[in-house]
Amino acid sequence: MVGGGQGAFIGNIHRIAMRITDHYELLAGCLSSDPKRNRSSGLDIGLASDRVYSDYKDMAKAESQRKDGIQAIVIVTPNYLHFEVAQTFLQHGIHVICDKPICMSSEESLQLLRLSQQVQKLVFVTYNYTAYPMVREARERVLRGDLGPLRFLKVEYTQDWLATDIEQQGHKQASWRVNPELAGIAGCIGDIGVHAYNLAHFMTGKIPSMLAADLVNFIDGRILDDHAHVLLRYSSGARGILIVSQVAIGSENRLSIQIVGERGALEWQQQQPDQLHYHAHGEATQILSRARHQSSPETSAISLLPAGHPEGFLEAFALLYREIATCLLDGQLVDTLPMIHSAISDMEFIEACVKSSQNNATWIWY
Amino acid sequence: MVGGGQGAFIGNIHRIAMRITDHYELLAGCLSSDPKRNRSSGLDIGLASDRVYSDYKDMAKAESQRKDGIQAIVIVTPNYLHFEVAQTFLQHGIHVICDKPICMSSEESLQLLRLSQQVQKLVFVTYNYTAYPMVREARERVLRGDLGPLRFLKVEYTQDWLATDIEQQGHKQASWRVNPELAGIAGCIGDIGVHAYNLAHFMTGKIPSMLAADLVNFIDGRILDDHAHVLLRYSSGARGILIVSQVAIGSENRLSIQIVGERGALEWQQQQPDQLHYHAHGEATQILSRARHQSSPETSAISLLPAGHPEGFLEAFALLYREIATCLLDGQLVDTLPMIHSAISDMEFIEACVKSSQNNATWIWY
Amino acid sequence: MVGGGQGAFIGNIHRIAMRITDHYELLAGCLSSDPKRNRSSGLDIGLASDRVYSDYKDMAKAESQRKDGIQAIVIVTPNYLHFEVAQTFLQHGIHVICDKPICMSSEESLQLLRLSQQVQKLVFVTYNYTAYPMVREARERVLRGDLGPLRFLKVEYTQDWLATDIEQQGHKQASWRVNPELAGIAGCIGDIGVHAYNLAHFMTGKIPSMLAADLVNFIDGRILDDHAHVLLRYSSGARGILIVSQVAIGSENRLSIQIVGERGALEWQQQQPDQLHYHAHGEATQILSRARHQSSPETSAISLLPAGHPEGFLEAFALLYREIATCLLDGQLVDTLPMIHSAISDMEFIEACVKSSQNNATWIWY
Amino acid sequence: MVGGGQGAFIGNIHRIAMRITDHYELLAGCLSSDPKRNRSSGLDIGLASDRVYSDYKDMAKAESQRKDGIQAIVIVTPNYLHFEVAQTFLQHGIHVICDKPICMSSEESLQLLRLSQQVQKLVFVTYNYTAYPMVREARERVLRGDLGPLRFLKVEYTQDWLATDIEQQGHKQASWRVNPELAGIAGCIGDIGVHAYNLAHFMTGKIPSMLAADLVNFIDGRILDDHAHVLLRYSSGARGILIVSQVAIGSENRLSIQIVGERGALEWQQQQPDQLHYHAHGEATQILSRARHQSSPETSAISLLPAGHPEGFLEAFALLYREIATCLLDGQLVDTLPMIHSAISDMEFIEACVKSSQNNATWIWY
Repeated sequence: MVGGGQGAFIGNIHRIAMRITDHYELLAGCLSSDPKRNRSSGLDIGLASDRVYSDYKDMAKAESQRKDGIQAIVIVTPNYLHFEVAQTFLQHGIHVICDKPICMSSEESLQLLRLSQQVQKLVFVTYNYTAYPMVREARERVLRGDLGPLRFLKVEYTQDWLATDIEQQGHKQASWRVNPELAGIAGCIGDIGVHAYNLAHFMTGKIPSMLAADLVNFIDGRILDDHAHVLLRYSSGARGILIVSQVAIGSENRLSIQIVGERGALEWQQQQPDQLHYHAHGEATQILSRARHQSSPETSAISLLPAGHPEGFLEAFALLYREIATCLLDGQLVDTLPMIHSAISDMEFIEACVKSSQNNATWIWY
Repeated sequence: MVGGGQGAFIGNIHRIAMRITDHYELLAGCLSSDPKRNRSSGLDIGLASDRVYSDYKDMAKAESQRKDGIQAIVIVTPNYLHFEVAQTFLQHGIHVICDKPICMSSEESLQLLRLSQQVQKLVFVTYNYTAYPMVREARERVLRGDLGPLRFLKVEYTQDWLATDIEQQGHKQASWRVNPELAGIAGCIGDIGVHAYNLAHFMTGKIPSMLAADLVNFIDGRILDDHAHVLLRYSSGARGILIVSQVAIGSENRLSIQIVGERGALEWQQQQPDQLHYHAHGEATQILSRARHQSSPETSAISLLPAGHPEGFLEAFALLYREIATCLLDGQLVDTLPMIHSAISDMEFIEACVKSSQNNATWIWY
Repeated sequence: MVGGGQGAFIGNIHRIAMRITDHYELLAGCLSSDPKRNRSSGLDIGLASDRVYSDYKDMAKAESQRKDGIQAIVIVTPNYLHFEVAQTFLQHGIHVICDKPICMSSEESLQLLRLSQQVQKLVFVTYNYTAYPMVREARERVLRGDLGPLRFLKVEYTQDWLATDIEQQGHKQASWRVNPELAGIAGCIGDIGVHAYNLAHFMTGKIPSMLAADLVNFIDGRILDDHAHVLLRYSSGARGILIVSQVAIGSENRLSIQIVGERGALEWQQQQPDQLHYHAHGEATQILSRARHQSSPETSAISLLPAGHPEGFLEAFALLYREIATCLLDGQLVDTLPMIHSAISDMEFIEACVKSSQNNATWIWY
Repeated sequence: MVGGGQGAFIGNIHRIAMRITDHYELLAGCLSSDPKRNRSSGLDIGLASDRVYSDYKDMAKAESQRKDGIQAIVIVTPNYLHFEVAQTFLQHGIHVICDKPICMSSEESLQLLRLSQQVQKLVFVTYNYTAYPMVREARERVLRGDLGPLRFLKVEYTQDWLATDIEQQGHKQASWRVNPELAGIAGCIGDIGVHAYNLAHFMTGKIPSMLAADLVNFIDGRILDDHAHVLLRYSSGARGILIVSQVAIGSENRLSIQIVGERGALEWQQQQPDQLHYHAHGEATQILSRARHQSSPETSAISLLPAGHPEGFLEAFALLYREIATCLLDGQLVDTLPMIHSAISDMEFIEACVKSSQNNATWIWY
């Protein structure tokens, strides 16, 4: 693992998810740029002392030379480091599991893809929201045509933790996310918008061909967007709308999606992840539940718990890790796994949003 | 009453609303262009035989000359007739209560306003959604500054009754609504979008200065829009988003609004009209209930029922009629009453949407 | 109308309900025992001066002798007067529409039934909750066997307005309800428990054969129950549970029912009266909506509004009045109409609850 | 671990919960009475071959003699084995972590308590529902007096998986649960009723002094109860009601509790475990969220995830294991940990229910 030392949020999440699966052993790490914190963080999570590295480059080299070296690296640093760390480990023949967004630009993402092809190692991007069982159920129903051709979709991801200027009061998580040098060209559209966009892509299999993005920020001194409205058009004529915010007071972490086709519609929200509302035209709305008789066998198979026993964020994350493990062990890819390919499209989405917004939210092809 | 004969939907709603208030007596009518239906509709609702008119012009004339003539006319015809009927009655010195949208264009609306000023008679537009008690509660809280300066709002109004081509199968309500000659230049943006827009205006007191509208229709042979995404910008820098659809399978008649300011937010949805969610930054979300201790005295005063006894669409409609009656009796206007002035702005909104959409959904001032 | 003067709650509800139907004309009244209030209340609601009576007995006599006398009397007094008023009007050949509970005892109820049979006039009891369209939908599904044989039901009716001793602070509504002389032998079990019990009876067509009732009150100085738990047993072996409270802080006016059979279940709650949850064993839960394609034609027929336009308490009340009017005009009874017959059973339920509770909540036959 | 071999449900849950905490290492096991399955189950979960025991007695002995022997045993067998297995390990000086219900009778539970006192080893009972953060939040608020003295509580736990006779069709989980020899004297009241009862006890700190229980089963050939209504009385005069069912079609796994005091009330349901509704008398209902500003610091401290990232059943289970680990490492007990003491009371509850029910659901002291 690179990143994820004491005080970090997402590193621990990855570790719990790995433990839930029971398919991973954490063997080496470079967890913090601060040598002391790096050391104590490493020992804390049970690493052997000689496998806590102060430099990720040394780590890549050393581990690639050990007979019992790591097979895959998990990257949970701030965004701006993803690219160079991923590159380094790939070059040493080590698979990469990286938090989103994979890079700072589509250009970098493409470079990484090329490299991974060259060294024949895999790059996974942890779009965890795609691994909720009922998101999978929805996707299966959309892809097999239950809804008919897509008419429109709406995807929302709103939070409120940046509703005030907490970055100016020493809030660590906030500070790097609003800093273009560490976070990239985009703020909330890059941090959570990309999750929303990816979810829509994942569920429908479709990428829009045009967009108009109105990115805005509401806090004095903040440079990157903390709120955005994006209109989407698909080549089929379908429409989409994407709403993201980190200043939406009252929204803890609301991710929801509505997909409407000619014959039916589906609605899912992360606040009740085990349920999916299915509307067939002219019929009563159905509440589909995870691992109940009415959901597909695949959905039950990927569940950890029987119906009615709430699963949540960590279980979805763990499913992703479970599937990555299966893939690394078997060498078989499955099409639900988020690979770097879709990450390139996601980066292009971010870039297109920024470009459209800078151009007064005009429509652009992308 | 003009319009609202047998088989019509909204005319009966207006009549029930009036009866709930007990302030109205229905004395004369021209209810249908079909003479036979007009006659039987009139007798049905208890009109004296000599006050069922086959021509609304005759009615305006005759009633204005009677000593016991009507004081106000209720217009519930298809949209294209609103203007000329309203004009006629105003010219005969009779107040007008008209269904929305008031006219086919902002130009006509303006003309009507001028006329009403000239004859010193009032024109009310029945934006019934503004009369839900918890909508009033929300408005009061926004206007007195509880939320701080507005950051963004989202208003959605979605239905699914036009998800298939029912207008081609003889559905009366659908037929005129998708016909430009009878409905005007806009389809769902004119039929329900204007309600959503008006609600946002009513609750915040603010009119956006720019918009970009993507109007679309999904049914072969349909000319007017049946779905729309509209981005809004306010001169203060605030943003808005408006989503309307009549093809959103699974949405019976969902109208909802979220208003977010610097210090708090409010959320209301017509599906649970007696409740309002209030989020003060940094505090627990509150569920405010109609006529409960926590809502303002005004809200209780306009309630027909105590808390926990569900009020609905008709009670809101009745409140509007109650307030119109008070206004006509007292000669006192109240600022919650929807008058023709705001209807002009609403028509301009519709026109701007159509113009923006025809111009590839570019941003336009309006 | 007898009762329902200025300041009273339920009288006005009845009047609005009647107006919604447009089948009633209010012609005479004895609205208050206070002569001055009686007079002004009568004029207020538009009665002719000579038909505002200071004594209901005079009213019964005078109206029965007028050629244009009233056909039916609406009784909305405190409970203790129901019996004598009803009796008087029946004796003068006038139909009775009475608020629940019909009498102070089953004995009185039976007397009233006998009298009504003798004079061949009808006695309706306004169990308004039975007239929500989705309650009707549920009933129809239960009675036609969709759920299979009944296994158990749970009905809850909870409020919180008596959570403190407001009767000791001059609250008019509270004062008579907690006073045994005015309210009868039961407090909340008589006031709202009887609604819950009646609803269960109405939906299932079944009356339990045994019960054990634990009635309690939580306020010093209060004599009648303000909270109750009642266990029910049906002769078929089915079970029931009834929970009522007027001290349940946070419950505005929550009435809900769950009915479970061998093959399916239904759930309804007054807080969302337009919806009904239907669970068929082994299938996805369905959300049935009033006046949507999936509900039965009867349910649509009794709706005032299309799906998605919230109906509430008053619309249900109005349906009751509409059906009563039809019955009085046609002379045809319908089995959904709450007549005095079921009111006798309801009184027996109250008496059995009190008896069981006094006997330490033992099981009793009834 | 004893029990929890391939095909078992709860054993795996315990293992995942332990892994989430990262405080446990699974070293030895006797996972199945079937030697072959035992062996392969043990290897499957990574046990050393010589520490997969075919007899739990051998295991207790061997492990107690190893220097690196296990410190605690997790018991996840069918109920009837809990007692003897727990006894055996205690006698060898090994702490016990046991699934509920701890024993087949209060007598056995008491014996176990005595033994644990004698050998000075601890016995934990995994009442996992007590470890949801918002259950903890509720408990804290109740115990510190926010609600005032308790007036009544309602706890419900309903499922539907036994709505048909699946035990007669070879369903393994069902078979032992409906068999008195393996499950004990109670069916659903013992399987899930005890969870509900324990939750009420945990949240309020109170044990009722009297109960009347109506236990019933609805399937031909089933001996133990599959549905129960229990009335409770507390010595303070407070009342309670407990409803459990395994035939409640449409209830996946609904556990909910409402606690009402003189000044306020709380409501929690497992279907939305991260939220808690708080009603202070005379104020707006608040929606409290896990790890949000409005919940207490303790609740945030025990959360794995920030607000808005759904936690579920496994995270609660893991918290229990985390606290047990802390307790075993520090030797410090915390009062939120479910120990054998409360398990005795729980067994007495089950026994009292059965006794009351056999005696026609009369009230009994217990």
